Amino acid sequence: MKLCRYGEPGEERPALIDQTGGLRSLAGVVGDVSPEVLAPARLAALAAIDPSSLPQVDPGQRLGVPVAGIGKYICIGLNYRDHAEEAGLPVPDEPIIFLKAITALSGPDDPIIPPIGATQLDWEAELAVIIGTRAKNIAVSEALDHVAGYCVANDVSERAFQMQSSQWDKGKGCDTFGPLGPWLVSRDEVPDPQNLAIWLDVNGRRMQCGTTRTMVFSVAEIVAYVSRYMTLMPGDVIATGTPPGVGMGMRPEPVYLRSGDVVELGIEGLGRQRQCVA
Amino acid sequence: MKLCRYGEPGEERPALIDQTGGLRSLAGVVGDVSPEVLAPARLAALAAIDPSSLPQVDPGQRLGVPVAGIGKYICIGLNYRDHAEEAGLPVPDEPIIFLKAITALSGPDDPIIPPIGATQLDWEAELAVIIGTRAKNIAVSEALDHVAGYCVANDVSERAFQMQSSQWDKGKGCDTFGPLGPWLVSRDEVPDPQNLAIWLDVNGRRMQCGTTRTMVFSVAEIVAYVSRYMTLMPGDVIATGTPPGVGMGMRPEPVYLRSGDVVELGIEGLGRQRQCVA
Repeated sequence: MKLCRYGEPGEERPALIDQTGGLRSLAGVVGDVSPEVLAPARLAALAAIDPSSLPQVDPGQRLGVPVAGIGKYICIGLNYRDHAEEAGLPVPDEPIIFLKAITALSGPDDPIIPPIGATQLDWEAELAVIIGTRAKNIAVSEALDHVAGYCVANDVSERAFQMQSSQWDKGKGCDTFGPLGPWLVSRDEVPDPQNLAIWLDVNGRRMQCGTTRTMVFSVAEIVAYVSRYMTLMPGDVIATGTPPGVGMGMRPEPVYLRSGDVVELGIEGLGRQRQCVA
Repeated sequence: MKLCRYGEPGEERPALIDQTGGLRSLAGVVGDVSPEVLAPARLAALAAIDPSSLPQVDPGQRLGVPVAGIGKYICIGLNYRDHAEEAGLPVPDEPIIFLKAITALSGPDDPIIPPIGATQLDWEAELAVIIGTRAKNIAVSEALDHVAGYCVANDVSERAFQMQSSQWDKGKGCDTFGPLGPWLVSRDEVPDPQNLAIWLDVNGRRMQCGTTRTMVFSVAEIVAYVSRYMTLMPGDVIATGTPPGVGMGMRPEPVYLRSGDVVELGIEGLGRQRQCVA
């Protein structure tokens, strides 16, 4: 099942994707794709609905963040073996946790608006995990039971802001730096999150082309690890790191985004995003 | 005006503090001390109520986080000149921004529960700013207009977790690491946020004794600065850094919290907190 939210920012309504890829309204079924709706029983109830019984939504709608009321947006740094090699940095011993401000969240195709003073705007295609049930101090073996589903994420970053202080959150947390979606794809449709192709193009040129097979820490390991420190709540997002090919890593010179650039990215089975740089 | 929330965790109800320090119920006046209630007109309406016309609340209640629905908990690192000197670190050129997970939030007198594996549990008394109105790219001169009020915060930190990776958020974001309160004190009661005494005791021994006069970046400068990167929303919290005297800085040896320790802290005019370490 693929859930999404469509409509103008702040007025999104819930929908699911039918067999033809069209949107079907969930109005009257759920108020929104809110954290409570991510509980296993609630998701199962939605999955039991025949999509063709739901009203069709006019095509061409803007898509919003696929989950409303996200409380935490957690990111894992340097989590791809080949990206660490590319960057010439050691593979971390433990997941590197940082946080993205929730005001950074935006729809999958919303523009990226460079903040004032931005000079090193960069991209990071990532597999995002959406938590379905509360998780605290859980074991790796049970971690995926707490996952409602998966999304595509672009962990947009301003490298000068990121590196200016020792802490990355400023350069990761700017408004529009958190495109998420197009859909929340329920866990049953992703039997192996460690075997997904992931790619990103800038102006039609392939920049990132990886697979979640080369993650240092698996989705299950990450969820269990984070839960040792902070309780994971329904609707929390964890972006699990990016494969090689970010702009900062380009040789002989880094490549950064400029106004008018178009970023497209996607993950096998999870859909694609397209952002223009304003 | 001093607003607070009382009752069991997750079931807090709104109240204000009367002239005698007692709680008066705001049930029926506001649903909760939610972000919308922090708008200037809403706060003014509450301030116009005669507290003695409101029902008294039985004393001895647990206090919760004084604001419901906090979206972002932003922290500023190394923001006291004398603390930077104590730590032997350079005074930062720009505010160091990091984020605290909102699941870390707890009531002002709730216990601090050491996470599994904690060995270097430390304290940081801080002045917290509560945002009242949306702020993006604002000037320093208008920054305080966006502030609803102030709170005491303890930026509880596990130093080993904090220093294990380059990013601090793991060691700052554990559950119960965000005591906030006892009250939201409205801005009109704090004419000069840069002239407040701030203190913290551990087991009755004074560890921190500072003043907000020695901040590197003022409250107004911080609010304006953060708003250049991430839109500040009503209910957002900014903890503005800690004065000298944290456990990590003790000589000849660092001092860390242990089970049974009692931490008490306060800020002039903003009340006090008391946490036991579980």
